[in-house]
Amino acid sequence: MRRDERQNDELRSIHIEPNFTIHPEGSVLITVGRTKVICNATIEDRVPPFMRGQGKGWITAEYSMLPRATAQRNIRESSKGKISGRTMEIQRLIGRALRSVVDLEKIGERTLWIDCDVIQADGGTRTASITGAFVAMVLAFKKAQENKTIKNLPIKTYLAATSVGIHPEHGPILDLCYEEDSTAEVDMNIVMTGAGEFVEIQGTGEEATFSEDQLASLLKLAKKGIGELIDVQKSVIGDIEAIGSAANRSDR
Amino acid sequence: MRRDERQNDELRSIHIEPNFTIHPEGSVLITVGRTKVICNATIEDRVPPFMRGQGKGWITAEYSMLPRATAQRNIRESSKGKISGRTMEIQRLIGRALRSVVDLEKIGERTLWIDCDVIQADGGTRTASITGAFVAMVLAFKKAQENKTIKNLPIKTYLAATSVGIHPEHGPILDLCYEEDSTAEVDMNIVMTGAGEFVEIQGTGEEATFSEDQLASLLKLAKKGIGELIDVQKSVIGDIEAIGSAANRSDR
Amino acid sequence: MRRDERQNDELRSIHIEPNFTIHPEGSVLITVGRTKVICNATIEDRVPPFMRGQGKGWITAEYSMLPRATAQRNIRESSKGKISGRTMEIQRLIGRALRSVVDLEKIGERTLWIDCDVIQADGGTRTASITGAFVAMVLAFKKAQENKTIKNLPIKTYLAATSVGIHPEHGPILDLCYEEDSTAEVDMNIVMTGAGEFVEIQGTGEEATFSEDQLASLLKLAKKGIGELIDVQKSVIGDIEAIGSAANRSDR
Amino acid sequence: MRRDERQNDELRSIHIEPNFTIHPEGSVLITVGRTKVICNATIEDRVPPFMRGQGKGWITAEYSMLPRATAQRNIRESSKGKISGRTMEIQRLIGRALRSVVDLEKIGERTLWIDCDVIQADGGTRTASITGAFVAMVLAFKKAQENKTIKNLPIKTYLAATSVGIHPEHGPILDLCYEEDSTAEVDMNIVMTGAGEFVEIQGTGEEATFSEDQLASLLKLAKKGIGELIDVQKSVIGDIEAIGSAANRSDR
Amino acid sequence: MRRDERQNDELRSIHIEPNFTIHPEGSVLITVGRTKVICNATIEDRVPPFMRGQGKGWITAEYSMLPRATAQRNIRESSKGKISGRTMEIQRLIGRALRSVVDLEKIGERTLWIDCDVIQADGGTRTASITGAFVAMVLAFKKAQENKTIKNLPIKTYLAATSVGIHPEHGPILDLCYEEDSTAEVDMNIVMTGAGEFVEIQGTGEEATFSEDQLASLLKLAKKGIGELIDVQKSVIGDIEAIGSAANRSDR
Amino acid sequence: MRRDERQNDELRSIHIEPNFTIHPEGSVLITVGRTKVICNATIEDRVPPFMRGQGKGWITAEYSMLPRATAQRNIRESSKGKISGRTMEIQRLIGRALRSVVDLEKIGERTLWIDCDVIQADGGTRTASITGAFVAMVLAFKKAQENKTIKNLPIKTYLAATSVGIHPEHGPILDLCYEEDSTAEVDMNIVMTGAGEFVEIQGTGEEATFSEDQLASLLKLAKKGIGELIDVQKSVIGDIEAIGSAANRSDR
Repeated sequence: MRRDERQNDELRSIHIEPNFTIHPEGSVLITVGRTKVICNATIEDRVPPFMRGQGKGWITAEYSMLPRATAQRNIRESSKGKISGRTMEIQRLIGRALRSVVDLEKIGERTLWIDCDVIQADGGTRTASITGAFVAMVLAFKKAQENKTIKNLPIKTYLAATSVGIHPEHGPILDLCYEEDSTAEVDMNIVMTGAGEFVEIQGTGEEATFSEDQLASLLKLAKKGIGELIDVQKSVIGDIEAIGSAANRSDR
Repeated sequence: MRRDERQNDELRSIHIEPNFTIHPEGSVLITVGRTKVICNATIEDRVPPFMRGQGKGWITAEYSMLPRATAQRNIRESSKGKISGRTMEIQRLIGRALRSVVDLEKIGERTLWIDCDVIQADGGTRTASITGAFVAMVLAFKKAQENKTIKNLPIKTYLAATSVGIHPEHGPILDLCYEEDSTAEVDMNIVMTGAGEFVEIQGTGEEATFSEDQLASLLKLAKKGIGELIDVQKSVIGDIEAIGSAANRSDR
Repeated sequence: MRRDERQNDELRSIHIEPNFTIHPEGSVLITVGRTKVICNATIEDRVPPFMRGQGKGWITAEYSMLPRATAQRNIRESSKGKISGRTMEIQRLIGRALRSVVDLEKIGERTLWIDCDVIQADGGTRTASITGAFVAMVLAFKKAQENKTIKNLPIKTYLAATSVGIHPEHGPILDLCYEEDSTAEVDMNIVMTGAGEFVEIQGTGEEATFSEDQLASLLKLAKKGIGELIDVQKSVIGDIEAIGSAANRSDR
Repeated sequence: MRRDERQNDELRSIHIEPNFTIHPEGSVLITVGRTKVICNATIEDRVPPFMRGQGKGWITAEYSMLPRATAQRNIRESSKGKISGRTMEIQRLIGRALRSVVDLEKIGERTLWIDCDVIQADGGTRTASITGAFVAMVLAFKKAQENKTIKNLPIKTYLAATSVGIHPEHGPILDLCYEEDSTAEVDMNIVMTGAGEFVEIQGTGEEATFSEDQLASLLKLAKKGIGELIDVQKSVIGDIEAIGSAANRSDR
Repeated sequence: MRRDERQNDELRSIHIEPNFTIHPEGSVLITVGRTKVICNATIEDRVPPFMRGQGKGWITAEYSMLPRATAQRNIRESSKGKISGRTMEIQRLIGRALRSVVDLEKIGERTLWIDCDVIQADGGTRTASITGAFVAMVLAFKKAQENKTIKNLPIKTYLAATSVGIHPEHGPILDLCYEEDSTAEVDMNIVMTGAGEFVEIQGTGEEATFSEDQLASLLKLAKKGIGELIDVQKSVIGDIEAIGSAANRSDR
Repeated sequence: MRRDERQNDELRSIHIEPNFTIHPEGSVLITVGRTKVICNATIEDRVPPFMRGQGKGWITAEYSMLPRATAQRNIRESSKGKISGRTMEIQRLIGRALRSVVDLEKIGERTLWIDCDVIQADGGTRTASITGAFVAMVLAFKKAQENKTIKNLPIKTYLAATSVGIHPEHGPILDLCYEEDSTAEVDMNIVMTGAGEFVEIQGTGEEATFSEDQLASLLKLAKKGIGELIDVQKSVIGDIEAIGSAANRSDR
């Protein structure tokens, strides 16, 4: 049995609290077991220079951890004066994942900023960030729709992410906590849509390798977990009309 | 009447939630009206180079805001690659204030790190940080005492801070929210001890000046407010024996 | 008796040499005891981005020390690649203080840069910088008036600064030299106007606290000292018509 | 037919030139179509701080492009003063991939540095870097073995990488050139061992998604390509005894 | 006899390979003994801010070494986050030297970027960079002339550079390799034109000095070597009409 | 006639004020016409890492300008967060020049820091810095000798520097002021010893070239000027015994 008495294909308890802080256009506190991330969405009325004049929008993400989100205190990246490779990878992943389910033409020349700030970490912070950020983004776009800033919800389908891995003792498992992640031989982060398609697969065997069969069992676990995460998202943001009709690849 | 129907000498509603996150030795969420700050305390078993070999400890603080703690999104200091002058001033103020009520000899060659992360801002974030940081610090020292890391609580007295200012319409007021702070002619941050002594007075008339009488009325408001803040602190951390006996300047 | 045989309420010898270097619009060498600061004023024909389009000017200050202004050589901030918190605090203080006595509308969309470079330090460099910077600023505005760049002197009143503190041996003292500053229990920097009003009070008890009575005696010393500093300023820049008429708060 | 008349499952022409420059312990110029990368390996007699005292080695990689490796000149990262997120991701990927096939205990407390410098780019620079870096690493370890610095070749199996993707016109294709990469809907980088196991899968649908079937066809292409790449590696570095015996997961 | 059996006034073997990479407007690999530098030229359709509106062009150079261009691995300047003084000096020297033989008016408001990347170093990398950069620049301007971007070749005369020095054993020598450079008492880099005039003389006696006679013999060696280098340049880029007619100072 | 009525071979008025500030071991204000540089020397009881354990000392220099040393205000390098290429070149030149006349073995494992801070600039700041720095250095070594820190003056000979150039109107001239420097076709900085030997020759024809004859006339001017500068140095620091006996190359 896993440390917290979970089955191998069982998610930790998930909770998404909308409107967590008052200022952002969309704000969410996502809790995945003991991992807690504040996801805030901001809509800015311009796009970065490389996107100007194309009549479409952009989505970009930033990720950070409080120094004591972890058991040992981390030095702030603002104090170090630079952002670590790990942070950059995560920020790029979140932005890319969100962009895959948004119709950027529909938001005009605007930027959606997503800020994911981990206030407590116990593994899976990047996948929790994606799952929470999707909800914060939808909340922000809904508000923009109410304000008549945008006409239609630019969301093509739901989006969530989880981690899977191969544990030396338990074998393939879903939604790794920090302790499991530290001992796993293979670690994979998967981002999928509400339509059951892949957006990102990032599998890595740090000082290890994995076979095609192992890959197959990991993908199966991820699919199950992401389905359940999307159910939680739906309980917060409801069934969005635009999502239903857009949830197939052919209309892109 | 002030915007939120407060009297001129009335604090906003104050709440201090202890043990807000699980990893830090001391963790607090302080809420002052709509201002919310996570204050985490970490005890590290060494001191910075300039303090080594003196047999005493050090206290240092870091302060940051989430990008959307405010109405407009702020660029992260980690992205800018440097810390602003404002942040530096606040960090130095928090550290200095805490050191004034701690007997650094009693903690040995250890560093207490205080991290104040503002998750929602509505004025008074630096004073809320000090008030919350004091509680987080005491919690951390209590845990260190329980673990036999330190023998006695090294706290000399309670410590809290608030802002006062001169408002063009209301005159001298206590505990300014962001809107009041923006229009105030004079802005003053005051840090005081449980013994009623001053630790810091930082009064500034940005494009304005103030008289001795005005100063006197501001100090009076601050004294009232800080007394009430310390009552809230006491309701969280209780009456600390070491504090009682140490609460006079003469034993330093 | 104090180290240099001064009374507790006695300033060190003060000298302000105008037109110290040839290039700046205003240039001053201020000597306060053994502390020497070059204060240069530059008028630039534009304002920073956040001030554009408001039809008014801006005043900003930079402060630096030569590496051997002090007994031990300091590493240059340009070599470190970043400005220390102490420098930032001082720069912000000087700028804020000067802005409090200038009518920014009267200078149009221009920036006055003040550069304070300490060539020899013996305590009180920030207050000497303010006192000298005021004179450099007035010289620069006078030249701008002569050149018809601006119409009226935009100065509302005189401005000077000094330090006061509580010394373990001497009690409350005026204008601390470095040695006194290092041993003082309480250190306070005060900026006041020619009209006897406060602009800034920055009192801090590093690892100490102070009472209301102590505060009162410190403020009294500061008032005396600043009066004398303004007399020295007058001997250099004369009585400025615009200052006389503007020297009361009511006309702001 | 693809632009360069390749079949969908056909690699570009591959060439690996050993001993390309004289100073490094291992040096290779790898050419993949028009992509050219210098891969240099350095053995340093110490490990980074976080690895000290564990009696095992470390492998780390750095990646860079000459400014005119590309059609448009890129600003040097040394001029910008910081390394981009893309570079960090690639560096981390190369290091992680190499570590997965090396027995770090066998190299003692030494660091193997891999420097991949792209002198001409036409897509697939990160996978060419991994394929070339593996050869440079083996050359360096062989030299260390000859010099009696290490006893046995610490290599567990061959390692190579390629890209696969889904092209709007051609469907699933192997080894994308820059033009194909720019228009591909899905882009995947795969690192595999000589034993046919996965080390890394990084699949991403920038503004797109992909199905399980598509994933399967991409993995099949990658497997074929990597087999051929390893044949080229063998033609340069020969059959290494240690590799044969170690080429199965069970002996780890 | 010198280490590589050269006479004191003998250059190492020189080779200049044009069109070394495919993307740059001009690309050259220059080999001077064991020193190898890739010199790439880029023409950009704008000038830096300080040159705008003057109707003339600019030439700027960047220089870098691969980490293992040398016997010991160097830390990348992109990792250090700043460019060393040595690199800056070399970059400035290359740019200045090239500008001295180009008629900047003739290239319009364009910038010629020269990138010199040392892939293998054995002394004389800065002078090899200049000699190679001149050829890369001419190739780029020829292409611009063919494309009708510019009308006439803006080159006034040939340009090459070499090092000379005083060796404790051999006396004055031409074209120092790394080992000779390390032991030389005086080191001098000379840049000359096809017309036999000086562009730069940088002679330095690190912990040594030199007499007028020694200077004379060094200049003589340099003149001989640079004449031979220009012959190699001519064999690559041919006799350029514009160069013939412009090769005297009087027409500037 | 030159702007300030000087002959072509005439220095500007030179003044060297010793003991300009109180803290440094050696302190000088050098005035060359309207150029004024504070040169401070510090002796530190350790050497940089690359020099440790060799039983000899090191000399290093830093150079900076006050923002308003010039007609236009310059941005501080501390604000920019990095040191310009020009500053680096000058710093390296000053350090190298001073090291050429010092017997580094005689100072033990100590570092002499030279800080040259230009408070007013009118051309020739780097050569004035060298000439002044030599005096500051000698003063510091004399004090170290008095304190018995070092036994003998480690100075081999006097050292001074000046600029020469070719002016379009006046031809070859000595000691260029800023205006002359801006219009000169060729600009050369020369550092020479009291024994009449060269230490550095840095001649550069920005967008111009020069002949051997022109070089000869420039060197002659420099020699005359440096002789006169050394006379001024002697009037300040006197004839130093160690210098007399060491002033020939043979004893190195």
